[in-house]
Amino acid sequence: MQLLLIHSDYIEYEVKKSTPVAEKIEDPMKSGRLEDALTVFIAVEKADEVNPDEVAQKAVSEVEKVAGQVKTESIMLYPYAHLSSDLSSPKVAVYVLTAMEKELSGKYIVKRAPFGWYKAFKISCKGHPLSELSRSISPENKDGVNVVCALEGKPEVVSEALKAESTAKS
Amino acid sequence: MQLLLIHSDYIEYEVKKSTPVAEKIEDPMKSGRLEDALTVFIAVEKADEVNPDEVAQKAVSEVEKVAGQVKTESIMLYPYAHLSSDLSSPKVAVYVLTAMEKELSGKYIVKRAPFGWYKAFKISCKGHPLSELSRSISPENKDGVNVVCALEGKPEVVSEALKAESTAKS
Ligand SMILES: [Mg+2]
Repeated sequence: MQLLLIHSDYIEYEVKKSTPVAEKIEDPMKSGRLEDALTVFIAVEKADEVNPDEVAQKAVSEVEKVAGQVKTESIMLYPYAHLSSDLSSPKVAVYVLTAMEKELSGKYIVKRAPFGWYKAFKISCKGHPLSELSRSISPENKDGVNVVCALEGKPEVVSEALKAESTAKS
Repeated sequence: MQLLLIHSDYIEYEVKKSTPVAEKIEDPMKSGRLEDALTVFIAVEKADEVNPDEVAQKAVSEVEKVAGQVKTESIMLYPYAHLSSDLSSPKVAVYVLTAMEKELSGKYIVKRAPFGWYKAFKISCKGHPLSELSRSISPENKDGVNVVCALEGKPEVVSEALKAESTAKS
């Protein structure tokens, strides 16, 4: 899973058109707005399919951590396919997004933008050093499996075990 | 290079704070706004360092293509590190961004947000099907080099030659 977290003066969206993978939604979900919110752009990835519950749980922890740092109680969960080139199935994506929504809803004001719709949106990013953060999350790799990538014949072995569960880029 | 192109009702930014890799800028670059613009979020990547000029040129072609499709004459070039986990050096990034700015400036109204600054920004995405696109661009691989990735012992060989120079995700 790839996350892009933006501390926003406001975030609002409005659905425009369904795509072939559009989630079925009721009227209240067709638009939404939050003030002074943490906007969480989310791409659920193929690798997350081995344990969607665990990934959802880890993502919730990251979101809560950042929400605490920027002191906001409002969270917009916003599916964002463009954050990854290796997306999960739409079914898993909706499962994970819904699980995150459910888990966070007890403690925060949470809205979730629907999956699989073309949407107009407006966002204002506050611009302080913590107002734009990204996180990569993956399921625990219980078998100590390695990811091997070789470019130009120079193999580079990256042990999953050596990677942090989530890494910050800023 | 990773590009995220957003057809925007408006895009505006204001620098807030320099980072250690901040580009030196004059007052006019400290804020900027365009109406009805194509906003191009850009991450210059390590792989682009082998041929920054070629990557800049290919990116300009992609940007022009999309600008034509959405019929806009205003382009905001906006550095966005969060689109990649394998960034180029800041020096190469600024070189590529500046080259793109220079190349596009003859034909479009172009603004470029400065590299290496924390910035506040506001954007309104129009929401039609072409209003959010992403592109991956890499330098031509003249030696037909392969990228090999193996996960869980099942190697997957992806020939660079089989990949399009740029791929659309939406
Ligand atoms: Mg990526």
